[in-house]
Amino acid sequence: MLKYHFFNDYSEGAHPALLEFITESNLSQEEGYGNDRVSMKARDLIRQSVGNPKAHIHFVSGGTQANLVVLASMLKPHESLMAAESAHIHTHEAGAIETTGHKINTISSENGKILPDQIRFIMETHTDEHMVKPRVVFISNSTELGTVYTINELENISKVCKSHGLFLYMDGARLGSALMSQASDLSFSDLNRWVDIYYIGGTKNGALMGEAIVINNSELARDFRYHLKQRGALVAKSRFLGAQFAGLFQNDLYFSLARHANAMADKISAHLGKWGFSFLTTPSTNQIFPILPNAMIMRLQELYGFHVWKKMGHESSAIRLVTSWATQEEAVDGFLMDFKAMID
Amino acid sequence: MLKYHFFNDYSEGAHPALLEFITESNLSQEEGYGNDRVSMKARDLIRQSVGNPKAHIHFVSGGTQANLVVLASMLKPHESLMAAESAHIHTHEAGAIETTGHKINTISSENGKILPDQIRFIMETHTDEHMVKPRVVFISNSTELGTVYTINELENISKVCKSHGLFLYMDGARLGSALMSQASDLSFSDLNRWVDIYYIGGTKNGALMGEAIVINNSELARDFRYHLKQRGALVAKSRFLGAQFAGLFQNDLYFSLARHANAMADKISAHLGKWGFSFLTTPSTNQIFPILPNAMIMRLQELYGFHVWKKMGHESSAIRLVTSWATQEEAVDGFLMDFKAMID
Amino acid sequence: MLKYHFFNDYSEGAHPALLEFITESNLSQEEGYGNDRVSMKARDLIRQSVGNPKAHIHFVSGGTQANLVVLASMLKPHESLMAAESAHIHTHEAGAIETTGHKINTISSENGKILPDQIRFIMETHTDEHMVKPRVVFISNSTELGTVYTINELENISKVCKSHGLFLYMDGARLGSALMSQASDLSFSDLNRWVDIYYIGGTKNGALMGEAIVINNSELARDFRYHLKQRGALVAKSRFLGAQFAGLFQNDLYFSLARHANAMADKISAHLGKWGFSFLTTPSTNQIFPILPNAMIMRLQELYGFHVWKKMGHESSAIRLVTSWATQEEAVDGFLMDFKAMID
Amino acid sequence: MLKYHFFNDYSEGAHPALLEFITESNLSQEEGYGNDRVSMKARDLIRQSVGNPKAHIHFVSGGTQANLVVLASMLKPHESLMAAESAHIHTHEAGAIETTGHKINTISSENGKILPDQIRFIMETHTDEHMVKPRVVFISNSTELGTVYTINELENISKVCKSHGLFLYMDGARLGSALMSQASDLSFSDLNRWVDIYYIGGTKNGALMGEAIVINNSELARDFRYHLKQRGALVAKSRFLGAQFAGLFQNDLYFSLARHANAMADKISAHLGKWGFSFLTTPSTNQIFPILPNAMIMRLQELYGFHVWKKMGHESSAIRLVTSWATQEEAVDGFLMDFKAMID
Repeated sequence: MLKYHFFNDYSEGAHPALLEFITESNLSQEEGYGNDRVSMKARDLIRQSVGNPKAHIHFVSGGTQANLVVLASMLKPHESLMAAESAHIHTHEAGAIETTGHKINTISSENGKILPDQIRFIMETHTDEHMVKPRVVFISNSTELGTVYTINELENISKVCKSHGLFLYMDGARLGSALMSQASDLSFSDLNRWVDIYYIGGTKNGALMGEAIVINNSELARDFRYHLKQRGALVAKSRFLGAQFAGLFQNDLYFSLARHANAMADKISAHLGKWGFSFLTTPSTNQIFPILPNAMIMRLQELYGFHVWKKMGHESSAIRLVTSWATQEEAVDGFLMDFKAMID
Repeated sequence: MLKYHFFNDYSEGAHPALLEFITESNLSQEEGYGNDRVSMKARDLIRQSVGNPKAHIHFVSGGTQANLVVLASMLKPHESLMAAESAHIHTHEAGAIETTGHKINTISSENGKILPDQIRFIMETHTDEHMVKPRVVFISNSTELGTVYTINELENISKVCKSHGLFLYMDGARLGSALMSQASDLSFSDLNRWVDIYYIGGTKNGALMGEAIVINNSELARDFRYHLKQRGALVAKSRFLGAQFAGLFQNDLYFSLARHANAMADKISAHLGKWGFSFLTTPSTNQIFPILPNAMIMRLQELYGFHVWKKMGHESSAIRLVTSWATQEEAVDGFLMDFKAMID
Repeated sequence: MLKYHFFNDYSEGAHPALLEFITESNLSQEEGYGNDRVSMKARDLIRQSVGNPKAHIHFVSGGTQANLVVLASMLKPHESLMAAESAHIHTHEAGAIETTGHKINTISSENGKILPDQIRFIMETHTDEHMVKPRVVFISNSTELGTVYTINELENISKVCKSHGLFLYMDGARLGSALMSQASDLSFSDLNRWVDIYYIGGTKNGALMGEAIVINNSELARDFRYHLKQRGALVAKSRFLGAQFAGLFQNDLYFSLARHANAMADKISAHLGKWGFSFLTTPSTNQIFPILPNAMIMRLQELYGFHVWKKMGHESSAIRLVTSWATQEEAVDGFLMDFKAMID
Repeated sequence: MLKYHFFNDYSEGAHPALLEFITESNLSQEEGYGNDRVSMKARDLIRQSVGNPKAHIHFVSGGTQANLVVLASMLKPHESLMAAESAHIHTHEAGAIETTGHKINTISSENGKILPDQIRFIMETHTDEHMVKPRVVFISNSTELGTVYTINELENISKVCKSHGLFLYMDGARLGSALMSQASDLSFSDLNRWVDIYYIGGTKNGALMGEAIVINNSELARDFRYHLKQRGALVAKSRFLGAQFAGLFQNDLYFSLARHANAMADKISAHLGKWGFSFLTTPSTNQIFPILPNAMIMRLQELYGFHVWKKMGHESSAIRLVTSWATQEEAVDGFLMDFKAMID
């Protein structure tokens, strides 16, 4: 029996306030398929929060679904997308994107982020019809390695996209954590300017289920409900998704939950850093990757749940610790105490 | 402002007992993606209720999703499925099945049901590789026209399927209503024997969201989680779906909710029949299709919400009235009173 | 051992003049994938013959390939095409179009042709995202039932397409026969105006293999070579296809071959009509469908090869007789003599 | 005006003997779609030559088409294939494989070949349904870098495939050149034992057009004609493809043409090696990749056509020279003379 899990940020249920929102909106008769009054209110709250009154917003039930619907809607059959080799859509979505018929042009990356020059290189080497035609750049923020993009980095990526006729799509499964990160100056309002479509992850930031797809580029908003329906992503009792996002964006709950998750991870990484441990990537969000001796990892695993991420030579490995809106500070303190005891 | 809606059975939220189940299971740390303890318990309850201890059960978030994942998992690229012309997958799922690459061989039907001879005819006329190769028979129960299959009808369809090497799949979006219908002797235990895969609709019978795919044919269960993941149907915080099905199959709530929906529709159809109105199809479940003079339809629409389904000559039309677990008997009584007043 | 086949128009090889063109262009070093000088010359000859100097022309190896590449290039994932129920793409291409992800909205038709009102009806009944969004109208000319479109009919179809934002695509597997038909006033120059894309069938009109896709709508020409490559339709030694089309469009061979095929069919239908037989559809091109007593069909089948197309009541059936560029007049005369002997 | 092209092996037409075979079989009436007598004879000749009387053989018009039809027929939606990063299907077929819905798991390779351990590694790291499920190993022989597999290498790959339930597919666009290479002991009879499906390339070894797909694993042969038809690969006047393969496998023309192509490349590489030049990969077949100073490449390009393949530091590059069945020895001698003059 483990003391506590740091496996991931979907091990917990929903923040109780969101369950109340669901209950409150439960008993009226409503239109279905996204046209209920609760979803409309949630859209208004999000538009206000992100600062784009013209944003088109659609709620779906999960991240893989968001990715496959959005990307398939953006691409013609011969067009491809580019993404970091570590991108979830490339490694851990069971080929969902290829199933819609599109190739992913991969970009090597140590920290999960991609650079404008890497985009340029792919464009320069894809020149005729014997190759796919890249059309979309996919980034995740925070990345699968817990890192974040700054305003400047995002602006530079966006500019190279525009100059090459590429769309920019951001997977925001952990966008709350990225925006609240002390390692980045990025905020929602920057996305209005630099990103064509992104989604705001609910599942990993306090919701039971749900992601909000935000379309800034109105050209791409056309017929989007057809794409949703066709992929099984248009939810009948949509009030359930709407209620959660109404809850998240009323009183800034979305931000405070993410801030808590980051604070818990920061506390762990600050201590481990102080005690002399290094990290696979700079700790910035609610996913951190400390490098520990293998023997110590085995002892820790007897008490706590987490994934071993990557071998670092023969004697050490990077592990992944994930905190969430629900992570209890006492559990973190207990973890640090047990950890300290092992190295003393 | 309308007095009441009979538009559909997803206008309402969830039965309050299910929200309690969700809340109860909310705060533990659980495995994700269907491996949580709540989902496991729900599977056990369903296996017990349907009487098949070996059934493979997967929860997904909607009916179109269930259909497209199941059908794509059953078919090779050159294989097709057959379905009634009125089948939802043919008319109202935005081409979801064709998007997975498969043709639907349609069967004409007045009442939404198909006959063994129609299956045989398609097999006899699809004989070589210039045509698709039919492999799956799709039926919905209850059908899109509110009708139901009897044991005998289902057995005959199943036998012709087996003799031609065809799989049989049943869309059970409204299966509760079908099983509780007084027009059919069918029960869950019959499905174990005659159907390869079916799904138990939660969304239209008291849940906020969720369908339970039940795989009887273990050959078809192989790798099914890959198919789910690939189509964006594997839910991270799966406890949410599990909790609802645990709630539905504890104390037979699933059946009592469906019985209520049927009773409300039966009450309406009994009165309308007594008052001399006929129906597009025999009223059997929670969807009924009375044929009314157009002028009267217009007056009714000022008070109640419902769809006009089909023109019947120049002066009359069939309308669709749908009841649900949440339909209030007082609303039904009020509807009947208003109706009576119009014809007196 | 049968005396002669009227099974189809691809039972024979190529017109000898085309083999000479292939041989002539065989030994130079040429660019591949459509950029050879022979293909360029063939494109010029076709552009001149059809009277559209701006037409984009691509050669592919077969009709199913032409259809699937063209249609997939025209459609977004949620868009569909409409076609007659008798259309080859619906009945006899093994689901090739659905394999590319698109639904076919079928139109009932006695003679293989569709009417503007049928297009309008589909548009009026496809109104929201629960249904596919029709985008292309598919017609074949001549049709699978040997009938042809007139200028007026085509113009009316084209106008309803334009008014609804639909593209019009014509499958011209037997376009030569259609244009040379005495039942139609249509010529290539009309297609420039009314059709977005069509293909000129070579295989069924004298070539060994090859169809020329002609794109009038330059918006649809963009990136077309990507679509070809992606579907395996971009031929390395493209000179082989080019040489045949150069041969067909030099000295109007394409037209004289089609004229011969029609003349042979006309001779048969004129005699059978004179002898009192009726036809499933009006004989117009190289495919005719006389209705004969079943007993007589059996006797004919001992001497000649042809398909029995459709039962007409209990005692008669329509058969299909197909002539081609290679049909020998002596064989036709022999057939008519044998036929006459049977009815005397 | 260049003296001669070494761009590729499809710059030339067909070997004249094959045109004669086409002409000879041109004027009879034949069944279509692969059932003609000429194709049947060609299949018999191939079965005899490869030493597998039970092989299932299908002729298609090109290599990309062969690859996409074969691979799509072998895979279920969630299954993937693995291939070298340099594999044609990954780099130069416009995403044809992804268009059929499948991911390619890439394997890094310096020389275009893959190793059993690399296959094992992919299997060990693809363990659950969040990832695709690898099912097919794709190799090309000769590879895109001119290298070849030996019996021993192929046997080892085949064994690791069988032990992991993987199918092995060999792209034989240049199989003739591989089998005739002095760097390999492999022959057709070895393929019967170690490979599930392969294709024998005609286009790059003397044919105008055509590849012969050879299916050794009879489980994979089932319904193959459906897959061909569905992808537009079933040719109506199939005699044209059959005639060429009958010509290639009568009197071993297939082997002598490949031997000539290899001999021409060997002559070049022998001289260049003698003159001190190294190669990107060991010269083995009709594609060789000498590394030359950039200045010299520019001078050579004024006289001869070839591709510059890869930068090798700042001052040199590897070029690709391709010979074929049609390469004239005088042209090779002229090239060597001009080359020698440049380095003297």
